[in-house]
Amino acid sequence: MDFTHSAKSLELQQRMQQFIADNLDPFEQEYFQLNEQLNPDTNWRNWQVVPETEALKAKAKAAGLWNLFLPDAELGAGLSVLEYAPLAELTGRSLLYPEVFNCNAPDTGNMEVLYHFGNEQQKAKWLTPLLAGEIRSVFFMTEPGVASSDATNMAATITEDGDDLILNGRKWWSSGVGHPNCKVGVFMGLSNPDNPKHQQHSMVLVELDTPGITIERMLTAAGESDAPYGHGEVNFDNVRVPKTNLIQKLGDGFAIAQGRLGPGRIHHCMRCIGAAERVLEMGIKRAMSRSAFGRPIIELGGNRERIADARLAIDQARLLTYFAAWKVDNVGVKQAMTEISAIKVAAPNMLQDIVDMVMQLHGGAGMGPDFGLMRFYAQARSLRLADGPDEVHKGMLSRLELRKYK
Amino acid sequence: MDFTHSAKSLELQQRMQQFIADNLDPFEQEYFQLNEQLNPDTNWRNWQVVPETEALKAKAKAAGLWNLFLPDAELGAGLSVLEYAPLAELTGRSLLYPEVFNCNAPDTGNMEVLYHFGNEQQKAKWLTPLLAGEIRSVFFMTEPGVASSDATNMAATITEDGDDLILNGRKWWSSGVGHPNCKVGVFMGLSNPDNPKHQQHSMVLVELDTPGITIERMLTAAGESDAPYGHGEVNFDNVRVPKTNLIQKLGDGFAIAQGRLGPGRIHHCMRCIGAAERVLEMGIKRAMSRSAFGRPIIELGGNRERIADARLAIDQARLLTYFAAWKVDNVGVKQAMTEISAIKVAAPNMLQDIVDMVMQLHGGAGMGPDFGLMRFYAQARSLRLADGPDEVHKGMLSRLELRKYK
Amino acid sequence: MDFTHSAKSLELQQRMQQFIADNLDPFEQEYFQLNEQLNPDTNWRNWQVVPETEALKAKAKAAGLWNLFLPDAELGAGLSVLEYAPLAELTGRSLLYPEVFNCNAPDTGNMEVLYHFGNEQQKAKWLTPLLAGEIRSVFFMTEPGVASSDATNMAATITEDGDDLILNGRKWWSSGVGHPNCKVGVFMGLSNPDNPKHQQHSMVLVELDTPGITIERMLTAAGESDAPYGHGEVNFDNVRVPKTNLIQKLGDGFAIAQGRLGPGRIHHCMRCIGAAERVLEMGIKRAMSRSAFGRPIIELGGNRERIADARLAIDQARLLTYFAAWKVDNVGVKQAMTEISAIKVAAPNMLQDIVDMVMQLHGGAGMGPDFGLMRFYAQARSLRLADGPDEVHKGMLSRLELRKYK
Amino acid sequence: MDFTHSAKSLELQQRMQQFIADNLDPFEQEYFQLNEQLNPDTNWRNWQVVPETEALKAKAKAAGLWNLFLPDAELGAGLSVLEYAPLAELTGRSLLYPEVFNCNAPDTGNMEVLYHFGNEQQKAKWLTPLLAGEIRSVFFMTEPGVASSDATNMAATITEDGDDLILNGRKWWSSGVGHPNCKVGVFMGLSNPDNPKHQQHSMVLVELDTPGITIERMLTAAGESDAPYGHGEVNFDNVRVPKTNLIQKLGDGFAIAQGRLGPGRIHHCMRCIGAAERVLEMGIKRAMSRSAFGRPIIELGGNRERIADARLAIDQARLLTYFAAWKVDNVGVKQAMTEISAIKVAAPNMLQDIVDMVMQLHGGAGMGPDFGLMRFYAQARSLRLADGPDEVHKGMLSRLELRKYK
Repeated sequence: MDFTHSAKSLELQQRMQQFIADNLDPFEQEYFQLNEQLNPDTNWRNWQVVPETEALKAKAKAAGLWNLFLPDAELGAGLSVLEYAPLAELTGRSLLYPEVFNCNAPDTGNMEVLYHFGNEQQKAKWLTPLLAGEIRSVFFMTEPGVASSDATNMAATITEDGDDLILNGRKWWSSGVGHPNCKVGVFMGLSNPDNPKHQQHSMVLVELDTPGITIERMLTAAGESDAPYGHGEVNFDNVRVPKTNLIQKLGDGFAIAQGRLGPGRIHHCMRCIGAAERVLEMGIKRAMSRSAFGRPIIELGGNRERIADARLAIDQARLLTYFAAWKVDNVGVKQAMTEISAIKVAAPNMLQDIVDMVMQLHGGAGMGPDFGLMRFYAQARSLRLADGPDEVHKGMLSRLELRKYK
Repeated sequence: MDFTHSAKSLELQQRMQQFIADNLDPFEQEYFQLNEQLNPDTNWRNWQVVPETEALKAKAKAAGLWNLFLPDAELGAGLSVLEYAPLAELTGRSLLYPEVFNCNAPDTGNMEVLYHFGNEQQKAKWLTPLLAGEIRSVFFMTEPGVASSDATNMAATITEDGDDLILNGRKWWSSGVGHPNCKVGVFMGLSNPDNPKHQQHSMVLVELDTPGITIERMLTAAGESDAPYGHGEVNFDNVRVPKTNLIQKLGDGFAIAQGRLGPGRIHHCMRCIGAAERVLEMGIKRAMSRSAFGRPIIELGGNRERIADARLAIDQARLLTYFAAWKVDNVGVKQAMTEISAIKVAAPNMLQDIVDMVMQLHGGAGMGPDFGLMRFYAQARSLRLADGPDEVHKGMLSRLELRKYK
Repeated sequence: MDFTHSAKSLELQQRMQQFIADNLDPFEQEYFQLNEQLNPDTNWRNWQVVPETEALKAKAKAAGLWNLFLPDAELGAGLSVLEYAPLAELTGRSLLYPEVFNCNAPDTGNMEVLYHFGNEQQKAKWLTPLLAGEIRSVFFMTEPGVASSDATNMAATITEDGDDLILNGRKWWSSGVGHPNCKVGVFMGLSNPDNPKHQQHSMVLVELDTPGITIERMLTAAGESDAPYGHGEVNFDNVRVPKTNLIQKLGDGFAIAQGRLGPGRIHHCMRCIGAAERVLEMGIKRAMSRSAFGRPIIELGGNRERIADARLAIDQARLLTYFAAWKVDNVGVKQAMTEISAIKVAAPNMLQDIVDMVMQLHGGAGMGPDFGLMRFYAQARSLRLADGPDEVHKGMLSRLELRKYK
Repeated sequence: MDFTHSAKSLELQQRMQQFIADNLDPFEQEYFQLNEQLNPDTNWRNWQVVPETEALKAKAKAAGLWNLFLPDAELGAGLSVLEYAPLAELTGRSLLYPEVFNCNAPDTGNMEVLYHFGNEQQKAKWLTPLLAGEIRSVFFMTEPGVASSDATNMAATITEDGDDLILNGRKWWSSGVGHPNCKVGVFMGLSNPDNPKHQQHSMVLVELDTPGITIERMLTAAGESDAPYGHGEVNFDNVRVPKTNLIQKLGDGFAIAQGRLGPGRIHHCMRCIGAAERVLEMGIKRAMSRSAFGRPIIELGGNRERIADARLAIDQARLLTYFAAWKVDNVGVKQAMTEISAIKVAAPNMLQDIVDMVMQLHGGAGMGPDFGLMRFYAQARSLRLADGPDEVHKGMLSRLELRKYK
């Protein structure tokens, strides 16, 4: 249980902090204003990327702060999950940062799937441009028609037809599908209904301009459109792809997903922790700088206790996420299920609570658009449902706990 | 402490329920879709009212379900605060209802101010069309530049200049200012800085087309634009109004506000309770109708306990709000301060918790746009800051409690 | 829904308050000291009643503050459940008071059973001396061998043998069995195992000196022995009682219990509310009178907010309990099941939370013996399990709630 | 941040677990029964130690599981605070264990004071027999007359008189003073009232048979007498000790206390974590083995979610305590103040919550004496006040947090 930051990780953290201070901090507020102006509503057909983004990406790439999530030493930086964790925390401090460093969900997860499970042809075609930040991707999993908290409910179909696979069904919460550069998706569907429960689904790569794919609408998540990424509801009507687009073989969907979700959840949670640190900082600054009833707001009522509670909650969540990362690195995802489910509950709830508290410290401004607190709320609130709702992860935690007594 | 629904109130409740079932329920979903289409973003200059709204208002007026909040027997229905409370609950079940019945905040509060404190000329000019539902109004109170939780911080000025008053300063969270029919506002500002603390401010009526008024932007509140009502940030630059627009006399602002806020808070809280009932109903229906892991979601984990907790919380909040209403009716607002502050904390927090729980029961759909849960979240979240944040009301509660021991 | 205190109830409240101020307040601290000296441990064989108790009972009887719980106009004061509720609250302010006014659990419940379901002979033999305060009683229900939260699990047996009934089995949490005057118990056992689930059990009266009854030990409840009342674990080994001791007929146990528990739970909850008021009062006084870090403790950190939260919680619980009482009076226990289960959850939890908070306000003294806070903790903690644990009542609440949608 | 258990620590953990399994587990229940029989009440004059204890201590000493808390390689096992932490967790699983391994509070703290700050003569006289487990000790700090949460309030006096010091005042919560072997105390008192605030107090060693010391009574802590250790209220009336009993020099009290409290708090918290693991284990076993409403209790309602919450809370608290220990070892107590205050809040609250939950899982038995849950409640509840109440530690946390922004 050694969470010491390695020299490599530490050095990258310092460089990333410097990069953020030099390039992103001064631009962040402008970015969100520009983004809002460019993408005023949920009509994704006109969505645009803030133009400066590409230049920032190029700068980050040049600075070697690129694809750090990927464990590969050449394609990424060869970081373990634990080594990447504090970097993920840094990227979580603003919703602008992840894309700049090419470590934005769901691309990271999709790249990991391609890296670990894609064949050479698939890698060449999609992993290479994804790693270059030239295209973006989407993961088609959740469905409006079924309770997707039980992933085995997934009902969209993949059927064989000669050398092709035919995709049918409806997906939603397809995050990132609205981005102008989003070109490819990983589609998970029911291919082998007669197999055992966790071998019935497969993953297929599908390009977004394939006939039969319709983005029906873009959903707001907790009030946020997340433009220009977006969360699409997407219909698949006899979408035909070649069998060479199948990842691994039919029925392997859940096996692949399992590998994808472990590190992905750790990244999500570390970003939550970074977000929480940022939000707490905002709360303290605001509450120290404004006065009511003759005293700085920070001195009123239980405010200082709430700061203490927040510090406690953040530090606990960080250590537990480090522990999950360490276990993934050292004993593997399967042995880290308790910790992965635990942080998946702890981190987003911690963030949601702190955001709510800091909103209150801000007064009316807290729930308004100026401080971006609602974006962090949306992040936390969504994550309590995405990748398995709290309740499913608590179910996993208790199942593993009770197993000790059987 | 008699909370018995009077025959008059009961009869109106039944009629309102029938009216809702016949006219509003079937239209509600369409209304929100139309409203979103008409008002896709925060650019209020183009905001429109869903056309059917006027017809519904006419129908409600014809049905005698109009201005029920107003205690006046002729202008309203002569209902006490307690008699109106269950009607306010009914109107709270949808964010569509209040305007239909002409009992939308902040108009109700403004009409009460005019009714109780306006002179005949003011009433004729503004109360009459407000009661007719022909115009709408706004309350200019909170300011971006100061911690408005301490209302004595308010810094916008009202200065005398011959027969006129000159208004200067910046207000925000001016709810309803975006509505096409919004014509008049009540402006609260600092007029007598040398008076004792609670006699320094005044209330002045100001028409929105008066030169010097600029709506700078429309704020989203917890992610919602609340179009076509909106929450404006409004600049006042040497806005000149005749002294006849002054309500009561200079320095009376807080005295008037006190009278305005009591019943208004009770209405807010009853609407929260109606909203909570609606949301709980949605959660139960959803959780009974979808299955995961082989069982209806309602049967999983702690879901049934959460339903029980919600029922308990709603019933407690309702009774406490009835009690506050009863005290306002029977011993006056001043003697009901403990209960008014108590419900102002209890009801919005209860609603926020239940919305959060029901989001979780809905899965991904819960935080999306389809079920309108985020609108109820926004209502609850905003109300925990508006009309005094939770912490200020807890401060009031404890002050009154400690006073017993001095 | 009229919770107005009737003139009769009000007058009794005033008299009871006066009686408490004159006779009990000045003696209370001494009572607890004497009681501890007389009953230093859990060895109930030597337990004694503080001698002054009898004189106080006589005084209360003379003052007409006697058996107020009983709805009978001659034997009690003819009070409805709602009329008695505020009196129960007053008696809850100290664990000394209930016996003085002859309204101590479980005697009140047992007297109600006898009053409503006993025959004339049973009433003459046991109800009369109970109403006179000459003897005390016990209720033998919960069993150590089964999860008694599901009362149908009860396994102690009642078997017919000629004109007698034979009782066998083991009961525990038999509260009051240690009191020197405790003479009779109501024994609930399995008599008709082949009947439908809720018609298998019966209630039988049994005198404590009947051969075969052994008090095995006295349990501490949340650390308190509750001497001289106590919570016994009692063995029944072929205990023979005449069939004339049967209440109603075989299989009627649950039907009788249902009638017993409604008002009983309301009394319990009102006593919790009285206890909470007392505890809050103690907390405020302590926190106003001691200083740390240069200020009175009440002014530190979130303490004032906690006082506000407590006031809010108490007032909500009281109103809900009044509502339950009103429903029992006006529409009957069956129609009040939601409210009865709701308060059974709300009131003890509210008391437990407030006791915990007030302990903290007291510093080290809070968890020590001097302020009696642990007695109130024990009351709350026990009540969260007695008469159905929280979880069972939440189950009932949700069952009734879901029924609306079936 | 390396929490890896060292080989030495791991080996000791394994040996301690084996020792517990072989010698303590089989005896534990009997121990508590014997202890209760020997010490039936709070009359400490007759308190006895369960005779088997000495044999167990000898066995533990022979097994090299002795004085492990002490960092000294010869007198203890040369363990760092982090290395000792998992051992402290193991000792926390039962209130029997700490004394057996000679690592019982307050002796550990007192031994550390003597070890770090005592002179050779003091060490020879008191540290040696303490380390041998021949005598026990007490810490005289908290006072009934002042809010001791602010330690600078301490008012008991130490005055110079020739070669002697005279102690006057009243202390309470003097834990361990009731033990028959308790021979010496560390008395902290006001010696230099004119010094700066944190240099006014001194620590003096005082033997318990010194004239003028009177144990007035033994307090119950959250209902538990903690016999044969006890929590005394002790009066000091002109108690004369030679100046050679002074630890370091006059005015050094707080400086010494600071050094004493860091590791001591970590030990306390690790014991809480061990206790929580034990309690959770009890809850799961009970809830798996008993049934209600046709299913094992663990399957009912939210019980499994509560198990998950407990696992999450324990793991977070353990990691944070490891972190605090690691910081004490690597950067010193002063730099670890945030973490020490954080765990001092987190661990006892976590334990209290889990005990409460597990009580509920046990039904009536949970609050009774059979499972010892109340002892763990008392431990948690006391610790939320001892060594600084929650609120003081939250104050410290927020002060350090806000300092970052000044």
